[in-house]
Amino acid sequence: MSTVKLIQYADAKPQAQAVFDDIHRTRNVNDVNNFWKALANSPPLLQHIWERAKDVMQPGALDALTKELVYIAVSTANSCEYCIHSHTAAARAKGMTDEQFAELQAVIALASTTNALATSMQVPVDDSFNIKT
Amino acid sequence: MSTVKLIQYADAKPQAQAVFDDIHRTRNVNDVNNFWKALANSPPLLQHIWERAKDVMQPGALDALTKELVYIAVSTANSCEYCIHSHTAAARAKGMTDEQFAELQAVIALASTTNALATSMQVPVDDSFNIKT
Amino acid sequence: MSTVKLIQYADAKPQAQAVFDDIHRTRNVNDVNNFWKALANSPPLLQHIWERAKDVMQPGALDALTKELVYIAVSTANSCEYCIHSHTAAARAKGMTDEQFAELQAVIALASTTNALATSMQVPVDDSFNIKT
Amino acid sequence: MSTVKLIQYADAKPQAQAVFDDIHRTRNVNDVNNFWKALANSPPLLQHIWERAKDVMQPGALDALTKELVYIAVSTANSCEYCIHSHTAAARAKGMTDEQFAELQAVIALASTTNALATSMQVPVDDSFNIKT
Amino acid sequence: MSTVKLIQYADAKPQAQAVFDDIHRTRNVNDVNNFWKALANSPPLLQHIWERAKDVMQPGALDALTKELVYIAVSTANSCEYCIHSHTAAARAKGMTDEQFAELQAVIALASTTNALATSMQVPVDDSFNIKT
Amino acid sequence: MSTVKLIQYADAKPQAQAVFDDIHRTRNVNDVNNFWKALANSPPLLQHIWERAKDVMQPGALDALTKELVYIAVSTANSCEYCIHSHTAAARAKGMTDEQFAELQAVIALASTTNALATSMQVPVDDSFNIKT
Repeated sequence: MSTVKLIQYADAKPQAQAVFDDIHRTRNVNDVNNFWKALANSPPLLQHIWERAKDVMQPGALDALTKELVYIAVSTANSCEYCIHSHTAAARAKGMTDEQFAELQAVIALASTTNALATSMQVPVDDSFNIKT
Repeated sequence: MSTVKLIQYADAKPQAQAVFDDIHRTRNVNDVNNFWKALANSPPLLQHIWERAKDVMQPGALDALTKELVYIAVSTANSCEYCIHSHTAAARAKGMTDEQFAELQAVIALASTTNALATSMQVPVDDSFNIKT
Repeated sequence: MSTVKLIQYADAKPQAQAVFDDIHRTRNVNDVNNFWKALANSPPLLQHIWERAKDVMQPGALDALTKELVYIAVSTANSCEYCIHSHTAAARAKGMTDEQFAELQAVIALASTTNALATSMQVPVDDSFNIKT
Repeated sequence: MSTVKLIQYADAKPQAQAVFDDIHRTRNVNDVNNFWKALANSPPLLQHIWERAKDVMQPGALDALTKELVYIAVSTANSCEYCIHSHTAAARAKGMTDEQFAELQAVIALASTTNALATSMQVPVDDSFNIKT
Repeated sequence: MSTVKLIQYADAKPQAQAVFDDIHRTRNVNDVNNFWKALANSPPLLQHIWERAKDVMQPGALDALTKELVYIAVSTANSCEYCIHSHTAAARAKGMTDEQFAELQAVIALASTTNALATSMQVPVDDSFNIKT
Repeated sequence: MSTVKLIQYADAKPQAQAVFDDIHRTRNVNDVNNFWKALANSPPLLQHIWERAKDVMQPGALDALTKELVYIAVSTANSCEYCIHSHTAAARAKGMTDEQFAELQAVIALASTTNALATSMQVPVDDSFNIKT
């Protein structure tokens, strides 16, 4: 149950249809995921997010898989059910192995533990971490 | 200002001193960071976290730098000031370049945006993301 | 699946029934939402939350719709599925247009992005933001 | 203590200087806040965030002050210290009165309470909240 | 640096002074903590929170110390610096020993780890956890 | 829908089967919950989490029920649906009464409210909360 309608291609405004067309071409699919259909309620927001995603997630100083792993980590910490599913699927499509996923989860679990401990103890930041400006 | 005392080596119990010794050897340092001094209030917890961190953060199916990037991502989403500082420093020590850090931040920022949108719109998970068991 | 029973009117204690009656009158409905039925397990908590909600959400220095938009924003950041649904419905009932909802989402998305960036970079607070006491 | 250098105008790259110039003009100030100086480590990210912020925060279907109130709400739920300070200052500059701020806080506080209760009780979403597609 | 003034007794409105007086009596102190001075900007909000806190935190089906431990746990998960400090101090004042604090932190750390894992794996809720209504 | 397969006993690796056997014995059950079946994709992670849970959750300076209450509080603040269900069931199995659960929720709700207020107002930590080192 969503808080907005999922807009199908036939019902979308021209600006949204153009974005759907670009997603079809870029990802070589015939249909877009629900996230994009939900965003199509606001074609300018749909276009912004799609263009930003294309730009940010392309390989650069970090490879595409590393970016997906970071995406899963953030989505997990934010408890975003949809994002966890979609980016775990994306990471698998980009070659994430079961061993890599298991290690990713171990790191996320460790970070969650030490985050809670450092926050609970309100540990003061060491001077050695300081950036000299 | 912390909620527990920071325990110095001379005041630590033998179990904690042994962990401090292992950190000195493993990281080739003369002093441990504040996080470990805070944990030393509970030597068994200190030992557990240190051994878990050594185990999880070693290179495996994922390399050591990728693990630090994931750690920063989780710590940022959890707003853990200490962890952001210590793991950003650790990532730099493991070779993270300014270009990689900038791309990491762009991915974290994008994920935070789409997390909020998917959550706000309560987008239903696509069947295509389903794991066949 | 809830962690508590949903208490129907006929099964509710007198203190809870009185709150249900007040909700019926105030909102001109014949049945209360699941949230109130869940809270009815603890009539004093039910009464406290209902009276607080009536008091806080009435128009004052901020109008009723603005308050609902803020409620959606907090509920989204906290990943509260139920609250996102109920307060999006409430905002629509109070006149939120599709254009306003789209802009609300754009602001929530932008704030989530800059929150993550400011936290990741641990930007020091500018002196100019200081309140002179 | 930040995890990146704060880049001053004289040390910024041309793309970052151009953004700083636009901020000076748009906001009628002689210096930019620390957030922009931190972002200037990555001129493309700086430019993207600034242009997005200008676009999203201008008055539209929602007025400028309402957008700032939503921004404060998200930043509070995300515990972003810098963002809370900067957007509270921005809201005051756009006319937020002490009475409005007090009511905003009361709404944020109420939403935080009911978010926790709905999540703790795992209240099922009422059918009446469903969007007919 | 706060986003509101801290109101001292002499500058407080009569409704706020009455609450301060009640805090002085109830806690046998001569001055109130900063949290109450900040809330005094809105005397009705100050009065509501103080009366709610007195009511909720008194011993009942749960003893006063257990309630403080739960408070610390929530405040840690929400990264509320002020609340972590004030309720850790309150728990110590109510008799929390170093051993209890260490075990509390171990539980918070474990819960944070399994929360992240269950969320990352999106584990379906077992039927056996269902409440029969 | 999970992001990993749920591994049944017959399909589990020997290291995972040994952990399942220990869970059967320790908890006197014939089948393990979904959380453990999901973790069985990585037998070392399964073993680590199970042994850590056995160790941390046993009665010590804090009794077993208090630990479950803290677990529910953390899981609620982290919006972990699975964990809220499993630990609410565990707390009931360890004797949590309806009255205790209602008071637990009232404390979680109060803490969530004051967390939001202290964070929104950025209340400075009182000197009196300082730990003398």
